[in-house]
Amino acid sequence: MLTRMASEFPHDMAGGVAVVGAGNVGAAVANALVLLHATDRVVLWDRNLARAEGEAWDIADGTPLLHNVEVIATDDWRDLAGVEVIVVTVGVAFRPGQSRLDERDGDLVRAIIEQLDAVAPDAVVLMLSNPVDVLTRIAQDHSARPAHLILGAGTVLDTARLRHGLAAILGVDSQNAHVHVIGEHGDSSFPAWSSATIGPVPLRSFPLPSGKSLAALKTGCMERTCRRGPDDIMSRKGHTDAGIAVAASRIVECVVRDQRRIYTVSVPALAEYGVGETAVLSLPCVVGRGGVVRRLALALDADDQAMLGRSAAVLEGAYQSNEISEQVGIAGEV
Amino acid sequence: MLTRMASEFPHDMAGGVAVVGAGNVGAAVANALVLLHATDRVVLWDRNLARAEGEAWDIADGTPLLHNVEVIATDDWRDLAGVEVIVVTVGVAFRPGQSRLDERDGDLVRAIIEQLDAVAPDAVVLMLSNPVDVLTRIAQDHSARPAHLILGAGTVLDTARLRHGLAAILGVDSQNAHVHVIGEHGDSSFPAWSSATIGPVPLRSFPLPSGKSLAALKTGCMERTCRRGPDDIMSRKGHTDAGIAVAASRIVECVVRDQRRIYTVSVPALAEYGVGETAVLSLPCVVGRGGVVRRLALALDADDQAMLGRSAAVLEGAYQSNEISEQVGIAGEV
Amino acid sequence: MLTRMASEFPHDMAGGVAVVGAGNVGAAVANALVLLHATDRVVLWDRNLARAEGEAWDIADGTPLLHNVEVIATDDWRDLAGVEVIVVTVGVAFRPGQSRLDERDGDLVRAIIEQLDAVAPDAVVLMLSNPVDVLTRIAQDHSARPAHLILGAGTVLDTARLRHGLAAILGVDSQNAHVHVIGEHGDSSFPAWSSATIGPVPLRSFPLPSGKSLAALKTGCMERTCRRGPDDIMSRKGHTDAGIAVAASRIVECVVRDQRRIYTVSVPALAEYGVGETAVLSLPCVVGRGGVVRRLALALDADDQAMLGRSAAVLEGAYQSNEISEQVGIAGEV
Amino acid sequence: MLTRMASEFPHDMAGGVAVVGAGNVGAAVANALVLLHATDRVVLWDRNLARAEGEAWDIADGTPLLHNVEVIATDDWRDLAGVEVIVVTVGVAFRPGQSRLDERDGDLVRAIIEQLDAVAPDAVVLMLSNPVDVLTRIAQDHSARPAHLILGAGTVLDTARLRHGLAAILGVDSQNAHVHVIGEHGDSSFPAWSSATIGPVPLRSFPLPSGKSLAALKTGCMERTCRRGPDDIMSRKGHTDAGIAVAASRIVECVVRDQRRIYTVSVPALAEYGVGETAVLSLPCVVGRGGVVRRLALALDADDQAMLGRSAAVLEGAYQSNEISEQVGIAGEV
Repeated sequence: MLTRMASEFPHDMAGGVAVVGAGNVGAAVANALVLLHATDRVVLWDRNLARAEGEAWDIADGTPLLHNVEVIATDDWRDLAGVEVIVVTVGVAFRPGQSRLDERDGDLVRAIIEQLDAVAPDAVVLMLSNPVDVLTRIAQDHSARPAHLILGAGTVLDTARLRHGLAAILGVDSQNAHVHVIGEHGDSSFPAWSSATIGPVPLRSFPLPSGKSLAALKTGCMERTCRRGPDDIMSRKGHTDAGIAVAASRIVECVVRDQRRIYTVSVPALAEYGVGETAVLSLPCVVGRGGVVRRLALALDADDQAMLGRSAAVLEGAYQSNEISEQVGIAGEV
Repeated sequence: MLTRMASEFPHDMAGGVAVVGAGNVGAAVANALVLLHATDRVVLWDRNLARAEGEAWDIADGTPLLHNVEVIATDDWRDLAGVEVIVVTVGVAFRPGQSRLDERDGDLVRAIIEQLDAVAPDAVVLMLSNPVDVLTRIAQDHSARPAHLILGAGTVLDTARLRHGLAAILGVDSQNAHVHVIGEHGDSSFPAWSSATIGPVPLRSFPLPSGKSLAALKTGCMERTCRRGPDDIMSRKGHTDAGIAVAASRIVECVVRDQRRIYTVSVPALAEYGVGETAVLSLPCVVGRGGVVRRLALALDADDQAMLGRSAAVLEGAYQSNEISEQVGIAGEV
Repeated sequence: MLTRMASEFPHDMAGGVAVVGAGNVGAAVANALVLLHATDRVVLWDRNLARAEGEAWDIADGTPLLHNVEVIATDDWRDLAGVEVIVVTVGVAFRPGQSRLDERDGDLVRAIIEQLDAVAPDAVVLMLSNPVDVLTRIAQDHSARPAHLILGAGTVLDTARLRHGLAAILGVDSQNAHVHVIGEHGDSSFPAWSSATIGPVPLRSFPLPSGKSLAALKTGCMERTCRRGPDDIMSRKGHTDAGIAVAASRIVECVVRDQRRIYTVSVPALAEYGVGETAVLSLPCVVGRGGVVRRLALALDADDQAMLGRSAAVLEGAYQSNEISEQVGIAGEV
Repeated sequence: MLTRMASEFPHDMAGGVAVVGAGNVGAAVANALVLLHATDRVVLWDRNLARAEGEAWDIADGTPLLHNVEVIATDDWRDLAGVEVIVVTVGVAFRPGQSRLDERDGDLVRAIIEQLDAVAPDAVVLMLSNPVDVLTRIAQDHSARPAHLILGAGTVLDTARLRHGLAAILGVDSQNAHVHVIGEHGDSSFPAWSSATIGPVPLRSFPLPSGKSLAALKTGCMERTCRRGPDDIMSRKGHTDAGIAVAASRIVECVVRDQRRIYTVSVPALAEYGVGETAVLSLPCVVGRGGVVRRLALALDADDQAMLGRSAAVLEGAYQSNEISEQVGIAGEV
């Protein structure tokens, strides 16, 4: 059943963005897509139609004060036909005290990707569900669409915070601070300091604030960036949604407008990284209309290389244990 | 205790907007203020500091991907000093099946307004808490600040939906569709059709779509506007927050930027309306830096006049019963 | 010959806006369309290709600092195929001391419209050339396209200035000040005070600033608005271009985005105005994708009605004298 | 004499941007500042007041259709008191067939800077007049204000075009293409290819489009960028103004909003460049509220180093010949 909302002059009859799952994260993503005007059409899918309707209608209520945008609630996969991007949020809410790698949402993802392949085989699929790197890999394993059309939100938010923090310390615009948090989206992620540049200048040659060593800069930057992390938010709020919703909107916008910006999304690693080509983790990529338009090879020093290896190993373990659980048969619940 | 967030180049060290209450509505308002860039500084107050921190930190997490904006969590009223606008959301969540006039939040509002008078006596106070007309009147009764500095969100959202619906039917921009939902923010509100204009042309002289009578136009417009009302959302979602948050952001923006736009906010009625000057209900006003800059007198026909009288009577009853409850002494819980 | 400019990711391969004439006004319009981002593609036509190239290339030079927009120079009418709007600026520059009705650009307009009908029969044609009302009428006479696809910029700028001035005096947003300068775009134009409204309130009922009469308000408003008119600018600069370029951009934007805003463009008068249906002069219209989407009938009092009749008579004379000059045969110079 | 324009709700009573000279470039800069909304207040100075008024009033005419911005014409230096940035355009128009280094505008600049030091000693001075590197150096020699408050527009436009061209060839956003045109703003300028990076990846390691060598990429990029250079525009139009006006607006915006972006402005070279510390030429700098907030040291290879030396030598010659001409006494004409 399809329930249309208030837009009177839809700019794109086809097109738009689907959000799968109308829980906290899905509702926050749909809301951010509308408030940031990333698209003119949002389709919010949930197997519980009333839940999708409650969120979609509430969001649509504010649109006469914004701009013409259509917000649609549905529980029918066929209503996703023609969308440009699909944001998968099912099971994405973090629970305090639980590792991001504990969950067994693999079967759920397999069931969803099968539906998506049927109704929207050319759309870009953006995974928000955690453990995002593992679930992105599972989605790629099971989808008929090319791998570059499936990406995870990875460490986009962590990287944005780090770039912002570094830029603030050095007194430059964050557009010009190129440093990336890479690896697992989780405890083993790390900033690839060895390849950091400020505009065209390597960070190691950049003049530091008076009396500050590069080591002190990195520490200060990490402290500032990690001061209030996801764990601090979850221990207070029970979940996170507002921040990740902005990250998702930015990635969606980059795809829809073919912006070709560099984001650290979850993708299969290039051979240059030496972690095996099945590893899926957060690395800097050019993102555009085709999803992952290009994966970049960072020059890593031995330390950064070792940390990346560690991250890849953690993720391989998580992936394998999920694969085993699959064989013993956990029922999907879509 | 004051916990500062990530903005590095705050544009206004003083200033900004406070949101009182970090429940669903308060969090949604703070989020919309940031995503719509209505201000560069948001102070989120809750007596439960952890709750304010969870929401503020989550919102602040996305700001490196947006623009420089400061999001502050606090449980200390003194941190509201210097803000330009205060949005009061305490107790605002609707519960399905409950009338908007049932609640007895008067004491809570009195306690809050006393605190606000102490720390921010010149700020504009925007009430979102329901029953909004009654609580706005109570706030005005008990505040030392001039009445024009206290207004309720009233029927801003209802009016926006109606203008949008009417504009769509007539094929004009909604900026040019001047019709207002007035009266109680609740079941007795109604569109003041008798004073409606399309740009400079009275609606009754405006050429209608072929074969449509004015009566059919009004009916169609109401159906379209009311199709999915607050009750439909609440029965599905348990509360509303996304739509009202956009309305609050627009009113805040109008104050902060002194836009002088016309909004149907809760205010004491002008004498011209003939409903007594103590009545507080939604009527069209010019809103700007001083809060309610000017109240407009609509020319109402007998029907509209009668409906306004009915709305005023309903609200007077609700106000009086609250006053009585005050005398028997309900403890404030701020 | 077609020379393409720097856009790398053109959003609309077809579409865009053509500007006919690369003189002061044409260049200013092309520049404003780019700086205000009214379109992603501008085709600047001039029979002197080098002139078109000089202007187009200079404008294109700044686009890497703006957004992706294509600026094309041409002297080939066929390059206008597929555009959505055509802005005709040929002969538009005012010369000091010369009446707007003196010129004999009719033949030029006939020759241009013939070319436009051949290559872009469905585009909206916006006339800027003066005397704009007369030339718009001539264009309509000689074009095969429906009259609603041809409109003149008329008194859009005069109305904007008046609305802005009135809004400032009354302390409201200019969006809500509905008053229109109508009639000839020239000395006989006048504000239609009798139908002015502020939001839903007739101006005559609107509370005036203390101690001010409505007559004094009107006088003050006119003085403020007319303080530095086109004549003052022309006597100093020799021509006008910056202001009219903004007006043209806004009208273009309104068409391209189907905004349905009310502008006082040059159109055939509705029968309600009683000036004959061949009269073409500035009256409020809803403008959108189809050009003139709807013409509005203002309720005018006797004074306003008389002034409109006078304007129509002046224009009829100018039109007839042009028609005569046509018969004696002035060669077009396109 | 000061003639104020139409803004009714000025956001900054003080502040704003002054433009010195109301010729083609000065008028284009004032217009771009308004259309791009880089400031809320523009003061246009010319010793010919009528010329300043003609341009300022024409620009102001369009502002009711834009946003509240004040455009002021003056011939009195005292009206520049309090502005944040001063854009100097006197003598800036290029003449075809004339080298940028031929002119002897040194005395004019000395006379202007003396006036600016008297009325606005803390403002940032942005030189557009050519030869911009030499005139920026002369301005720094003769001003009492610190050197970081005086900068020239240098190769900002050339760099923007090169970044845009390179980004398009490589399929990334131009924000991520860090390559800079440095040296003299003139025939001896060149791209510093040896320090180019794409995001965090050195250009020499970045995967090129299939079958393309780095040398071919550079050639293609230069051809594309230089296809229609200033000379091609000047030979057709007689001068350039639209492109440089956008560049000036972006630099102004960067100062006013303290954006800390990297622009190749004319500044004294850092010692690291080995061209002598009196050399003033275009090099990448972080620009913000204090003007040149930080000069960056690019790592140049031998080729780039040699070209920079050549540029510096050309400029030193031009500077010295101007100094000599000064001693023989050319009268300023301000």
